[in-house]
Order: sequence, then C-alpha cells, then structure tokens
Amino acid sequence: MDRRLGPGRLGGLRQHDGARFARSAEATGSLISDEEVVAWLRRRKVVNQFAVDRIAFGELDKWSFAASTGDLAHDSGRFFAIQGLTVTSQFGPVHAWQQPIINQPENGLLGLLVREIDGVPHFLVQAKMEPGNPHTIELSPTVQATRSNFTRVHQGAKIRYFEHFAGPGRGRVITDVLQSEQGDSFYHKRNRNMVVEVTGDVEEHEDFRWLTLAQINRFLARDSTVNMDIRTVLSTLPMSTEDDDQSTLRTALSVNVPARYGFDELLSWLTGLKCHYEMTAERMPLREVADWKRTEYEISHVEGKFFSVVAVSVQAETREVVSWTQPMLTPARPGIAAFVMRHIDGVPHILVQGKPQPGLFDFFEVAPTVHCVNADYRNLPRSVWPPYLEYVLEAPARYSVLHSEEGGRFLNRENRYMIVEAGDDFPDDEGKNYRWVTPYQLRKLASLSNCVNVEARTLLTCLASLW
Amino acid sequence: MDRRLGPGRLGGLRQHDGARFARSAEATGSLISDEEVVAWLRRRKVVNQFAVDRIAFGELDKWSFAASTGDLAHDSGRFFAIQGLTVTSQFGPVHAWQQPIINQPENGLLGLLVREIDGVPHFLVQAKMEPGNPHTIELSPTVQATRSNFTRVHQGAKIRYFEHFAGPGRGRVITDVLQSEQGDSFYHKRNRNMVVEVTGDVEEHEDFRWLTLAQINRFLARDSTVNMDIRTVLSTLPMSTEDDDQSTLRTALSVNVPARYGFDELLSWLTGLKCHYEMTAERMPLREVADWKRTEYEISHVEGKFFSVVAVSVQAETREVVSWTQPMLTPARPGIAAFVMRHIDGVPHILVQGKPQPGLFDFFEVAPTVHCVNADYRNLPRSVWPPYLEYVLEAPARYSVLHSEEGGRFLNRENRYMIVEAGDDFPDDEGKNYRWVTPYQLRKLASLSNCVNVEARTLLTCLASLW
Repeated sequence: MDRRLGPGRLGGLRQHDGARFARSAEATGSLISDEEVVAWLRRRKVVNQFAVDRIAFGELDKWSFAASTGDLAHDSGRFFAIQGLTVTSQFGPVHAWQQPIINQPENGLLGLLVREIDGVPHFLVQAKMEPGNPHTIELSPTVQATRSNFTRVHQGAKIRYFEHFAGPGRGRVITDVLQSEQGDSFYHKRNRNMVVEVTGDVEEHEDFRWLTLAQINRFLARDSTVNMDIRTVLSTLPMSTEDDDQSTLRTALSVNVPARYGFDELLSWLTGLKCHYEMTAERMPLREVADWKRTEYEISHVEGKFFSVVAVSVQAETREVVSWTQPMLTPARPGIAAFVMRHIDGVPHILVQGKPQPGLFDFFEVAPTVHCVNADYRNLPRSVWPPYLEYVLEAPARYSVLHSEEGGRFLNRENRYMIVEAGDDFPDDEGKNYRWVTPYQLRKLASLSNCVNVEARTLLTCLASLW
Repeated sequence: MDRRLGPGRLGGLRQHDGARFARSAEATGSLISDEEVVAWLRRRKVVNQFAVDRIAFGELDKWSFAASTGDLAHDSGRFFAIQGLTVTSQFGPVHAWQQPIINQPENGLLGLLVREIDGVPHFLVQAKMEPGNPHTIELSPTVQATRSNFTRVHQGAKIRYFEHFAGPGRGRVITDVLQSEQGDSFYHKRNRNMVVEVTGDVEEHEDFRWLTLAQINRFLARDSTVNMDIRTVLSTLPMSTEDDDQSTLRTALSVNVPARYGFDELLSWLTGLKCHYEMTAERMPLREVADWKRTEYEISHVEGKFFSVVAVSVQAETREVVSWTQPMLTPARPGIAAFVMRHIDGVPHILVQGKPQPGLFDFFEVAPTVHCVNADYRNLPRSVWPPYLEYVLEAPARYSVLHSEEGGRFLNRENRYMIVEAGDDFPDDEGKNYRWVTPYQLRKLASLSNCVNVEARTLLTCLASLW
C-alpha cells in the first residue's frame, strides 16, 4: 500500500466534507422552493432597479485618458485602468499583436458561506446586480469584493458577511485558492476563491438566501442565472460518493479513478508547454496600440473583432455608491466553451487543452476542449475552425447553457457552455496541446493556483451540477 | 478508506521509483570511489583552467549601458540585462525601495540523467566550471542550459545529452517542474527542473561521471562542491522507505505522516499571505534607481548593503565560447539559510516562513526558517535580528555547509546552509508568517511550481542528504 498517498488528518476531514456536500447536491428538500427563489430574484430586481446606459467617454465622471499614455484610468488611481498590451507568441497562427487590457492588479475576494441546516449544508447566495449582466440580477457568492472594497471597510459601507472570511472570527475554511480570470481581457487579475463554513446563526439579509447545492445545480441549468463568481468558487468544492462504479460521473468527480495519465504527468505536460512555446506580454501606452481605433464612444479593433472598450453610466441602489460611470469591455459576439467527454477504459475522461492567454500570470492554463471567444465561425470555411468545434456543434449536448461573465467589467459578455459526449468516431489520440483527464484530476488541478482557466472552471462546475 | 487519495497508476510507479532512489542513497558501492571523484574534479579543473578578473564596465565586450535607460544589456538583446526595479511592500519594515535586478525572462533547463547500473540508480553529474563559483568547478546536473543555448543548437555547439530531455528520443520523465531562482536578484527567472531516466547505454564524456545518490549526499556535506542547480533538481526526487517509524527523518521525508496542518491548510495559508500583504514590483530604468550609485567598476548601494553589479572577463575552455566578458552580481557578504526542525507528536517538522521577494513570479514562496541575504547581524543589536536567527546561531547544527549560488550570474555568492534541531525551549506557536510542516509536505509543495524558494529547496536536498 502506498502510504505516501494515504489520507492525512485533513484527508479524512475533506472526505467527510465531500460526503456532506454530496448530501446537499442530492437534497430533495430546501428552505424555500425554486419558484420562491425565482420570485425572490424578481422582487430584488424590482427593489434594486437600475439603468445601464452607454455614454461617450467624455461623459465619464472621474475617469479620463492620461495625457502621456492615452490609458483610461480613474482620477484616484484606484479601481482599474484600461491600458495597452503588446504580445509575442509562438502558439497559434498569430505571432504578434497589440490590444487593450484591463489592469487591476489586486486580489479580490469571492467568498461563499456554507452552514448546515437540518443536517444539510446550505450556501448563502446573493441576488446581486452587476451592470454588465444581461439579466441584471444573478445568483452570486455571499461576498464579492475587490480589495479596494474591503480595505476601506471602516470608511465606507461595511461589506456584509465579510467578517466570516477574514480576521479572528472567521469560520472554518473549506477551500481557499487564488484563481485567474479572463486572460484575454485582464492583466494578471486574480481573485481569492473561498468556501467557509459557519456553525452559529447567521442573519439572512433580504438580498441573501440559503440554498442547497441541489438548488444551485438546478439554476445552473438555466441561462444567465448563476454568475461567474459563484461558478468559479464552486469548482473545487470537495465531493465524495460511496458509489463504487467507476463509469459514473459521480465517482469520476470525487475519486482518483484510473486515469490515462498520472497527475505528475499532467503537471509535466503543462510545464512542457510553458517551456516549448515562448510568449511575452508587456504593457504599453493604450494610445499606441496598433490596429485599434478610438472614437468618442468606443475603442475597437479596426476589423470589428474581439471586443470594444466602451463607457456606461449606471444608476442603482445596491452598490456601494448609488450611481456611477465606468468603462467596460463588450465583446463583438458571444462565445462558446465546451468540454468533450468520453469513457476511456470505462472511466469518464474530459479532453482539455493547454492554452496560453496574454493576461494570465503564467500564460498557460488548462482550458476547455473548445473555447471561441467570438463564436462567429459559422460564416467561415470549416478549414479555419478551431479543432473539435465542428464536433461540438454537431454532437448532442449533455449540457448547453448560456452564462454571463464578470458583470462588473464586461458588458453583455456571454458564453454558451456545452458538455458533449464523444462517440466512437471521436479521435482517441490527442495532439500535443491536449490531454484526456478525469474530472477528479481536473478538480485537483483547479485546486492549485493558476492551473485551470475560468472558462474550464465554469465547465467543471456545470459538470458537477449533473451530479 | 479514502479512495480519493489512493495510489493512481503513477502513484505505484513513483513508489517503486522512490524505493529505487532510496537504494541509491543507501548504496555502499559505487563505480568510482569518492577519492577518485575528487581527483577527477581536480583534473578537470586543471584541464579546464580559466581566469576570472574584475574589469571596468567600459571594458565589457558587446555589453553596454543603453543611452535612454541606463540598463546594462548585451548588444544582441540576448542573454540577460541588468535593469531597475521599483518595489512597494506591506511586508517587513521597509515599504518601498528601488534596486537593480537581472532580467532574464526565459525558461532554461536543468536536467539530471539517471540510469540503473548493477541494479542501483546512478546520476550523471558534470564537473562544470562557472565563473562565479569560488572554487571554479563544482558538481552540476547533466544539462544546464539557457533557452538561448538550446534553441540555437543547430548553429552552435551541440549541448551534450540534451536529446535525453527533449524531443522524440527523450527518456522517462521522473520529475519535471518549473522552479524559481533568487527572487532578490532575478526578475521572474525560472528553470525547468527535470530528472529523466534512460535505460540504454550512454557515453560518459570526460567531464561527466555516474555517481550514486549516496555519493552526491556525501559531497553535499562538503563546502562549495555541489552546485545550486543540482541541489534544486534533487529537491523533489521521489524517495520511499519501508520503515514504519514515524519519528525518523527517512519516514518523514517519504511518507505522508500525521502533520500539524493538512496540505490544503498550507496552501490556504500561502494564499492568505499573498492576499494579506500587497506587493508591487515594476521594472524601471536602471539609471533612475534611487540609492544606488554607478562608478566605472560597479553599481552599488550607497550604504554598501545588499550586492553590487560588477563586470568580469572570463578566459576558459569548457563554455560555448572560449572567452568572454559579462556583468555579474556580487553580494556584500555571505548569507545564512537555516531550517529549524523539531518533533511534533513524535513526527519531524520543519518551521518554514512565507516570505515575499520582489523578483518572484508570485512574490510569496515558502522560505527557510531564517534567511539573511547578508549575514552581518553579529555587529548589530539583537533587537533588530530576524526572528530565530539567534537561536539558529547558538543551537548545535545537525548540518552546516557553505554552498555557492548560481555561478553564471553571481560572483562569489555563498550561503551557509544550516539545519538545527530545536530543543524544548523553542516556541511551539508559530507566528502568522510561519508554519510547521513535515519534510514530506515541503517536498510535495516543492513539486508544484512557484511554491518553495531556491534556498528552501537547497535545504530540502541537504535534509534528504542526511537519509
């Protein structure tokens, strides 16, 4: 027996946690019904009514283009800035480009509170409005705060429930890991993803509700209802099952089932990609970014590709301030992110890609089988489609839901998240940049920092929602 | 039983590897005796004679200070450059400073070849001269190459044994991980650390010898004999033992023995430090760095602290070119790096520090209990000594050896590496920035990228040398 890998003290505890969260995923009862959740969301939306309007850059309040660089920044130097990025890459067909990028070099907190109610873990979700979410209010983690938010706690409004995640009174930490966000749009942005359990009473503010994991999973089957932040936080929640059947998704998600590759081999594969493909990304003055043009209303690519930088005014009541203006990024088109899944030797495996993005800390992270930022390939010849896109679009999907991305920075950025099961016609041999991994291995990778990108983590949560 | 953590396919293989490497660490025989190794090193030193001389910056060939920035760079733009870095930090007493830094943003390879000879794994070490090593020739990994070296393989001299680490003919990968180097002097420098096993015959070039791990371990007990690159490569070599006694170092190094903290708790602790202490580091023109002055011969701190940038000429025969000039960093004084070890509930634990350095990829990595870059504290009042330094200097040391650092960039940079066992008088409660970890946990952390710094990895290898 391999004692090196035997359960440590925490191993047993996590196993126990996993069984409890599985109970929550299998719960048939709940404090409030799904219909009541929908009604509550609708009520919060009415109470917290707000309007988001596109404005000219010149109408931005306290945001301006710096004279020397053309960077778009807040007069206080806080929040974030839109700067330029110049990239060289040996990966893919384009070897050099420049682009605008959001620079927000601070670690925020995405915290989800859990508490056992009648023996079943419940999660305290928030009905949170973000200006960029197409449906305005979505289910969010308990706390979603930038560092600027929580470090000025004593000057401004208190962040509700923040005390459970930091300081002497915090609860028991279940998961706690720094995770990247969209590496095509953010420069080195990361958030601390935490699940924390409390045992005492916690007041349920009207913007918050205790839901079971089963409920959250059902809402994950609805378009644009569960926001990106709760999706990423849930991606590494420990799960376990007594089921011994290695062919089931439950077992593959929670047990170290026999895999095509060992975990060390996967880390070595990622290391190899990082060393094989050189990439550089340096910030540069936004004004000098080639192939992007600035008008009174937007900064956009000369061919209308990728995304545009725009300005919005927001009038709302639930945020720290009641109304404000800010820049946002809005995509040219919705994207697609998909996992291809198949059984290998009777065990479910997912095909993942090792893919660099210029704003990621270490460029390469594990990405979905297919991720098209702008899924407009239907009008292009199939010869230029990314690998496996055709397969994904034509195979029957086991999961296919539209989710929005980070509504505080992106205006109407949505991806269709898909999980398709491959038939026998699907190529078994992956290329150099792809690997078949088990869901358990992918969750283990995600529990390390900077290993699994935000779209793949969303898909991991969607996959686990099929529990 | 926690099946989640059960041995996977590779788990069993690694266990088998671990037993084999333990056999090598316990080997009494060897192909050549230690005395023959010493004689061979002496011969190589004579054959590969070279001279290193300090020169004026003006005498550097193809290196010059850029007119606009004052950065010191090679005319080709390759190799590395000395630039400026401006740092802000919430950690420690100094909250802002500027300094010179080596920018070498490419991933090199440190590769150690292993082969079973008469049933015992042997490692192919090199007698390698580096201009900065105080004793000129040291034991090195099989391959020690910058990316510039191996990507121009077809234009210049072939790198011996490189084919075993890359390409279709490479051997079986035992370990493969990107590791940081000195974060006080390098900006984002990392090297790929690999141990690769071959089964076929491998020619033993006169600069190379096959040694057992037992031999390497004995040389690790000698001052300035085993170079930094082999020390870091060996730090994650799998080891295992049949010994059941949890109080032994062997067991604590190779088995997941009961630990004060779970592994996830340690990751969470590191995450917490990264989020708690904000740090920024931006490159800046070298000419504008405050508190450093440039003369004809050196760039040094106005108070003579830290290190100096100097220029050297090297005349040698073993490098890719026969003679050259280059800038180097030379420290003000030798340093000290130490682990404090103690038994907790009968199991050996090491006290490690979470410590930021401005050139590290993610600032915070796990560092030794004590690391003084310039160990000149003896002349200062004890009230300003770093935590635990006094204890380390006064306790009887189980290990105390002087080792040199990266001799290709540092001129005469040495640290005294110490492992001391704490008595009952040692405080059991660690502060917020410190944690007691088992040697096994520390090796597991080191097997992830960017988690354990280079001095702590050296100490880990020194610790394992006591096997």
